[in-house]
Amino acid sequence: MIADFRSDTVTKPTRGMLEAMNAAPVGDDVFGEDPGVNALERKVAEMFGKQAAVFCPSGTMTNQIAIKAHTRPADEVICDRLSHVYNYEGGGIAFHSGCSLSLMDGDRGRFTAEDVANSIRPDDIHSPRTSLVAVENTTNKGGGACWDFAELQKIRRVCDENGLAFHLDGARLFNALVAKGETPEMYGNLFDSISICLSKGLGAPVGSLLLGDAEFIEYARRIRKLMGGGMRQAGSLAVAGIYALDNHVERLGDDHARAKRLAEVLSNLAYVSKVIEPETNIVIFELKKSLDPKAFLSGLEKEGVKAVSFGGQLIRFVTHLDITEQMMEHTIEKLSAISL
Amino acid sequence: MIADFRSDTVTKPTRGMLEAMNAAPVGDDVFGEDPGVNALERKVAEMFGKQAAVFCPSGTMTNQIAIKAHTRPADEVICDRLSHVYNYEGGGIAFHSGCSLSLMDGDRGRFTAEDVANSIRPDDIHSPRTSLVAVENTTNKGGGACWDFAELQKIRRVCDENGLAFHLDGARLFNALVAKGETPEMYGNLFDSISICLSKGLGAPVGSLLLGDAEFIEYARRIRKLMGGGMRQAGSLAVAGIYALDNHVERLGDDHARAKRLAEVLSNLAYVSKVIEPETNIVIFELKKSLDPKAFLSGLEKEGVKAVSFGGQLIRFVTHLDITEQMMEHTIEKLSAISL
Amino acid sequence: MIADFRSDTVTKPTRGMLEAMNAAPVGDDVFGEDPGVNALERKVAEMFGKQAAVFCPSGTMTNQIAIKAHTRPADEVICDRLSHVYNYEGGGIAFHSGCSLSLMDGDRGRFTAEDVANSIRPDDIHSPRTSLVAVENTTNKGGGACWDFAELQKIRRVCDENGLAFHLDGARLFNALVAKGETPEMYGNLFDSISICLSKGLGAPVGSLLLGDAEFIEYARRIRKLMGGGMRQAGSLAVAGIYALDNHVERLGDDHARAKRLAEVLSNLAYVSKVIEPETNIVIFELKKSLDPKAFLSGLEKEGVKAVSFGGQLIRFVTHLDITEQMMEHTIEKLSAISL
Amino acid sequence: MIADFRSDTVTKPTRGMLEAMNAAPVGDDVFGEDPGVNALERKVAEMFGKQAAVFCPSGTMTNQIAIKAHTRPADEVICDRLSHVYNYEGGGIAFHSGCSLSLMDGDRGRFTAEDVANSIRPDDIHSPRTSLVAVENTTNKGGGACWDFAELQKIRRVCDENGLAFHLDGARLFNALVAKGETPEMYGNLFDSISICLSKGLGAPVGSLLLGDAEFIEYARRIRKLMGGGMRQAGSLAVAGIYALDNHVERLGDDHARAKRLAEVLSNLAYVSKVIEPETNIVIFELKKSLDPKAFLSGLEKEGVKAVSFGGQLIRFVTHLDITEQMMEHTIEKLSAISL
Repeated sequence: MIADFRSDTVTKPTRGMLEAMNAAPVGDDVFGEDPGVNALERKVAEMFGKQAAVFCPSGTMTNQIAIKAHTRPADEVICDRLSHVYNYEGGGIAFHSGCSLSLMDGDRGRFTAEDVANSIRPDDIHSPRTSLVAVENTTNKGGGACWDFAELQKIRRVCDENGLAFHLDGARLFNALVAKGETPEMYGNLFDSISICLSKGLGAPVGSLLLGDAEFIEYARRIRKLMGGGMRQAGSLAVAGIYALDNHVERLGDDHARAKRLAEVLSNLAYVSKVIEPETNIVIFELKKSLDPKAFLSGLEKEGVKAVSFGGQLIRFVTHLDITEQMMEHTIEKLSAISL
Repeated sequence: MIADFRSDTVTKPTRGMLEAMNAAPVGDDVFGEDPGVNALERKVAEMFGKQAAVFCPSGTMTNQIAIKAHTRPADEVICDRLSHVYNYEGGGIAFHSGCSLSLMDGDRGRFTAEDVANSIRPDDIHSPRTSLVAVENTTNKGGGACWDFAELQKIRRVCDENGLAFHLDGARLFNALVAKGETPEMYGNLFDSISICLSKGLGAPVGSLLLGDAEFIEYARRIRKLMGGGMRQAGSLAVAGIYALDNHVERLGDDHARAKRLAEVLSNLAYVSKVIEPETNIVIFELKKSLDPKAFLSGLEKEGVKAVSFGGQLIRFVTHLDITEQMMEHTIEKLSAISL
Repeated sequence: MIADFRSDTVTKPTRGMLEAMNAAPVGDDVFGEDPGVNALERKVAEMFGKQAAVFCPSGTMTNQIAIKAHTRPADEVICDRLSHVYNYEGGGIAFHSGCSLSLMDGDRGRFTAEDVANSIRPDDIHSPRTSLVAVENTTNKGGGACWDFAELQKIRRVCDENGLAFHLDGARLFNALVAKGETPEMYGNLFDSISICLSKGLGAPVGSLLLGDAEFIEYARRIRKLMGGGMRQAGSLAVAGIYALDNHVERLGDDHARAKRLAEVLSNLAYVSKVIEPETNIVIFELKKSLDPKAFLSGLEKEGVKAVSFGGQLIRFVTHLDITEQMMEHTIEKLSAISL
Repeated sequence: MIADFRSDTVTKPTRGMLEAMNAAPVGDDVFGEDPGVNALERKVAEMFGKQAAVFCPSGTMTNQIAIKAHTRPADEVICDRLSHVYNYEGGGIAFHSGCSLSLMDGDRGRFTAEDVANSIRPDDIHSPRTSLVAVENTTNKGGGACWDFAELQKIRRVCDENGLAFHLDGARLFNALVAKGETPEMYGNLFDSISICLSKGLGAPVGSLLLGDAEFIEYARRIRKLMGGGMRQAGSLAVAGIYALDNHVERLGDDHARAKRLAEVLSNLAYVSKVIEPETNIVIFELKKSLDPKAFLSGLEKEGVKAVSFGGQLIRFVTHLDITEQMMEHTIEKLSAISL
């Protein structure tokens, strides 16, 4: 048995999902003829109350397409210092869109409407033109923290007053919805564009969707083609996504409970100097200086428990669909057995 | 019954392929842990005698990654006026790579070593720097024409003498190999990079591979990540590709025979003014001016036969895995029944 | 004595121009405070009936700024195969703007409204989006040919019907105005943007202007800043430009007469196989194969006559302000003395 | 009388400089034939012990060319949060080079070798590739602070160990040389590329130079052409630069003394809450909250004293060649007369 807490991306299709995939009728999506892809795009657009959606191979692609579509070269994007679009997309904002970043020093990846207002550049040829605010909910590097919806509404107002677009990287948005009792429509109403991911907590093998109004998504399809994201018979992947949305959303609460349990255990261990309070399915904690993170992780791996380093003394555990109760017991036992 | 000759991309997975897909063990390819993807990349690299390969969602992505990796912004790429990289990739060479094109007026998409030598720019700051030659084999817009291997060898020499990289868009390379009795190794030895597609004549649902030496493919993985082409549990797609390479290469000869038969029929029809001699699985022909191409295609579609317009009076038929003998008979009957 | 026919860019400031330059009051143009630059921009905008103008160090910069301002990355620009923006600006359209080119095979650099209409791309994600038509008047590589104004009006109509912008590279526009008896206002009314050059036939040392409506020029100033084209006390250069516009336009007719005279002489020489009929100040002719162009040019240079190779057997002479009657006599004598 | 402390860019050519400009022999620099430009490029390269130099219209262009030449798209550049390349070049690093920034939180724009070492990205496809460190000496937004040369040497070592290029934005380097008693050769030996500006404290009307080894400058000339920075008869500007280097370097010490004097006066004024200790010719101070910066500046301007806002309550004064002793007296009198 291997308890793999490295990421919620490691989940494998369940039996039910595989059966759905095998039964999927397929067609050529480049001709717009894949029934599964069409059904998934319609379903998600309706969930969020958006006019349209487009299916892509990854969340990096949906985010980068959105940023490209909202900006012109030499614009500037406001996002958090901890955001995925800045840290884990290879420098894509400068590469694809020729845009600079104005990085916020938020709380676990969450900044304020006042931060945004203070960061808008003056109308001066020496400065880039601020044109987009991007937030991530939940925040990966912020330990799965959820945004306060009222603050997001305030940011929306600042965007409206200053002609800025507002994009949501919702790679783990369903975790926030479940944790906070929020609905997709609330987010659909607030943002110009939303990226959601099927292959994290939801457990589908591949794929993300970008949502927006019809004209925006039409342009996004053009950028998707340019980036090589147009797939042919992608129906089996899309059907897996539909299955995940129908069956794997509510159960995210279990992942959150397990993350809390892990955090409690960790906060009582002598070699842990800090645990970031989990709000969803991510647990980040700090090892005391006397423990080498690499040695700690390889020791755990020998015991069948996998996690990842998160920079310096930080370690990240992510709970998900493929973590069983038995794995939890085993993991807690092994964590507790380690001594300074 | 619908005989769909619009493209060889419309093929659906066969029963055998679906069974292989269902049985595929999967893992997270972003962690390099998907067994199917790893096996496919190894298999194709070995077939061509290349050091490495990387699996991508589309041939547009593999071509655009290769062009990016071989060039610097403000370079110039030599390719044919009919090439896919120029006509059907959305203007991606300028968009992703900031490169200009020097377009050859070849014969059905095939130019000569002399053309290349004459097109290399002088070393002058007023001109872009020529750095790459890209060929497509077989040529899509050239009606599935195959390159003369001896001419490709001569182009290789011109490239070597002038420090140019040499890329092959092999979206339909297996058609050329079967038609000409050539081997993958011959091409692997000649080109710096090769893109092959699994979802055209080979019949897999999704995916292309880019091949090159180890350092090139390592850089290509970085660009794939930037473009959002990193997929998670892509194993079922990869396994379909392996199945296709094992089972669907030799049978391409059947598609070629059917294309020839269609061409013979067409060349005897009163409303056809020209048929481009098929060398592989693509038949392009010209309608006489008195026939409206749109009306011709919609009339055929009502009879259960689909094809596409190819600009002006040109019509394209592509034969493939899902075309049955019965469909051939039906199609020939319907084509023959049309009168001027 | 050296008769330098290599280009009309080689002219040196006249005594009158130098006096104007020396007397120029200057200020910091980045603060918008250089009186000479402000006066020049106003003067030229008024000449052409445009709302605004911006002064730049070169015509490459004014053209590239215009193309950037009219397009989005992945658009396509229609221009002639012989155009300066394609041949002599280093591949800048792809580099700065990420745009592809649709190259016309015009007559001496001049294409037709029908050519434009036939080159507009379909609205399809596989193709770049056509967004701009750029013409050059007079055409440098076309031997100083002037466009037919009625054809330009027809192209304007095609642009309007298809939502395309229309840019004029008028590096040598004043030559066309003088040759055809046209006015700046005619061009100002027809084009969205115009680039004119002060340092060619007009004889100023440095500088070009880009003209357009107020919003366009405001954005152009942003791009000029990005490209590093903002100069500080540029007033002496601007004052030279004002002097040139006041004193050196009408005299372009003399250059045209001299070009015609050179062409007549050349057409009677045994070693010349073809002379392109000069319409303005550029004479392009072809040497018979038996003469080596390099040897021909270096032989002439030893006799005090400079010209440039224009590819293959072609040679280009350009007449200008610094060519005296004595130089003409000397040149004709030396050209006539050469034998096959 | 107007005492203009807004910037050292506002200086106008002196009588001696104008005489040199008028006497300048000129030629076409695009053909490499302007004697003044050639002499200036040689002179500066020799001063710094570099192989070559290229003359450009602005420091924004020299910096952006250097960054382009040292990087590939999707790389990351390390620079200070206060640096000119980040704040005042319009977002050019993302626009021209497609590169991300890693921003240091230095002391008045000066960071440490340790900061650099800690900011180099891991070799991981999720991250951009760190390839360049850029420093600015003196630092404009840091109030004209000078770098510690020993720390620059340590950064050079970190660069060498990690394969990073090292660029100096020396827009006001001569102020640092004079203030610290350093030599151009010290900097020439340390950096891969250096940008210096002639139109700030040195008092020339227009122009900057980029220095580096021969191959680097050859490539820089290509980028300069692309950006439209190739000027024709630029000799009079170049000759002004030569005059400035010969006559205006040592006198920068006077500007520094005046800046110190202003700072002393300001630090005793009741409405000033903080003065950043000037090291060269820039004085930045903070107004108490009760004073509105706009009203303060417009009040001063009515008294013939100009300065600029530097964000929030900060005000910047810059001393330079055109500030006379009389202007100093007047300014100190007016500053002292203002009450809270």
